[in-house]
Amino acid sequence: MGKKITIYDLAKKLNVSPATVSRSLNDHPSISKKTKEKIIDAAKSLGYRTNKFAANLSQQKSNTIGVIVPRLNSNFMSTVLAGIEKVANDVGYNLIISQSLESAEKEVLNAKTLYDSGVDALMISLAYGTENFDHLTTFIDRKIPLLFFDRVFDLPNCPTILIDNEAAGYEATEHLINQGCTNILHIAGGLKRNVYCQRFKGYKRALEKYGITFKEDNLVEVDLDLSRVPEVITHIKESDPKIDGLFVANDTFAVHCIKELKKEGYNIPQDIKVMGFNNDPVSEVISPNLSTMDYPGYKMGVLAGQSIIGHLNGAINLQSANQITLRHTLIIRESTQK
Amino acid sequence: MGKKITIYDLAKKLNVSPATVSRSLNDHPSISKKTKEKIIDAAKSLGYRTNKFAANLSQQKSNTIGVIVPRLNSNFMSTVLAGIEKVANDVGYNLIISQSLESAEKEVLNAKTLYDSGVDALMISLAYGTENFDHLTTFIDRKIPLLFFDRVFDLPNCPTILIDNEAAGYEATEHLINQGCTNILHIAGGLKRNVYCQRFKGYKRALEKYGITFKEDNLVEVDLDLSRVPEVITHIKESDPKIDGLFVANDTFAVHCIKELKKEGYNIPQDIKVMGFNNDPVSEVISPNLSTMDYPGYKMGVLAGQSIIGHLNGAINLQSANQITLRHTLIIRESTQK
Repeated sequence: MGKKITIYDLAKKLNVSPATVSRSLNDHPSISKKTKEKIIDAAKSLGYRTNKFAANLSQQKSNTIGVIVPRLNSNFMSTVLAGIEKVANDVGYNLIISQSLESAEKEVLNAKTLYDSGVDALMISLAYGTENFDHLTTFIDRKIPLLFFDRVFDLPNCPTILIDNEAAGYEATEHLINQGCTNILHIAGGLKRNVYCQRFKGYKRALEKYGITFKEDNLVEVDLDLSRVPEVITHIKESDPKIDGLFVANDTFAVHCIKELKKEGYNIPQDIKVMGFNNDPVSEVISPNLSTMDYPGYKMGVLAGQSIIGHLNGAINLQSANQITLRHTLIIRESTQK
Repeated sequence: MGKKITIYDLAKKLNVSPATVSRSLNDHPSISKKTKEKIIDAAKSLGYRTNKFAANLSQQKSNTIGVIVPRLNSNFMSTVLAGIEKVANDVGYNLIISQSLESAEKEVLNAKTLYDSGVDALMISLAYGTENFDHLTTFIDRKIPLLFFDRVFDLPNCPTILIDNEAAGYEATEHLINQGCTNILHIAGGLKRNVYCQRFKGYKRALEKYGITFKEDNLVEVDLDLSRVPEVITHIKESDPKIDGLFVANDTFAVHCIKELKKEGYNIPQDIKVMGFNNDPVSEVISPNLSTMDYPGYKMGVLAGQSIIGHLNGAINLQSANQITLRHTLIIRESTQK
């Protein structure tokens, strides 16, 4: 790799002291406007890189928002990101995104990378395994706005945007019960995360409300990676009494369960009724079409973007808008018909 | 926002000159090891941010690789990214990703943001509209390794990783002809980009080889956004003589064409045989299952990651490995059966 341009190179080139260069790039009041301009021009033409210099010197802004998501191979996440991008681009902000791949360790590394790259704000949706939040306190301590979306955690002064997952889990389960299911298997993601834990709580509350006893065997916690579909199918085949309803915590996993169940000779919805979650486009590609819970990802992204940018521009004080809850909607299709 | 920690704050705190702080953080030889350590410790504990400081001071590395992709809501792209992540994580590199949303203008902004954030290398798959490459010359001039994948362009000393799209387009079309199709509609992405232009060339070459005259009407260039499906369906309904084969440049668009054609009463594959491209999981969700071209995205990501990291570690000279072509595979399923 070529050597990076340092303030020493700039100083030598312009015949000034390194301290003068450094002060100019930091917009120090001791340096004249003329000198600052000369140094900034030289820094630009030589390709000097610092995030502070990159954008608005006096405001020390990079006009960049960092986003950490669990996985990018998710229609829901890319829809949320599209909403954030829309709002950010309209006002000249750019996003840089990194994925934790559901690893708490990698999430720490992502936070460090985004911090070091000089982001003005951070939005995060947590990995399955994250239990410690030290990697985020650096942002809070430096008053860099931090917002949680979807998979959230309550930290002081950090707003959260999500849906009422408990209510949504309740309604999904209630719908299956209303369609005649009495032995419903729930496929959950990592239960440490609010979204999966709350959906599971909603599932349990619906069972209770309708006088159905919850059985530990009817909860399967997987990471929702498609490689885990076969073990779910085996679980269903071996269940006694037989499973007549399936509530899966996301659509992609639900769709692949339907596909495999059909291969095993199950008729959907006659033998097993299936509910997904998120209303991904794939829910309308599978036959029978999948009943699901609409989770307004794009709207979530837009609201998250508006909150952060409003705060950065001084129009909104994030501390006062502590939690935004979006509306979810039950979508009934063929996979849960009587 | 809180004020960022500057070298002046560090200098004041440690009772040394700002120049000493700056030199220490830049690992300047004029400063003693003991002083450097003291200053680095203070910089860490106070949260001083610069990308150079963030990582390996003496090597001026950030251990971060920047990636620009057209869109994140693509199974193919997230599979490529998974491959890059795998290799990068194994050796302690982290990715930061930004999406151009198919806009050349935004791609320029992305490149600037990633440059300013101090990435050690850049990997890019081009937007539909990119025609000018000035935004990438900064990287080349500073000898920051730059690699193109999938949607590539030939720039001096920048390796490219892709498949033989012309051959793949030829084989896809030849398969449709062998199955009896004589009036094949091709749905292409932006023809400025190699991948779509080459697939189209392959389509035309296959027609020619089998004595079928190419008709301008049988080429539809769309951005492959699902909002464009209805106009393709209208085009098919109004075509005379009727379309009996459809070769679509990606699976997602092909799958939604099948879904809508079925609604319009078409039998697939009896009335129209359909070929996709990429071998996304959704190609096995649609009924009938979609014939497609397997594009090894994960392998592409792994190779791209290995090339860049090998170069950064001095093990590979990227200039000597100018183009890597991966193998594609025709996947025959129900949607093109006779």
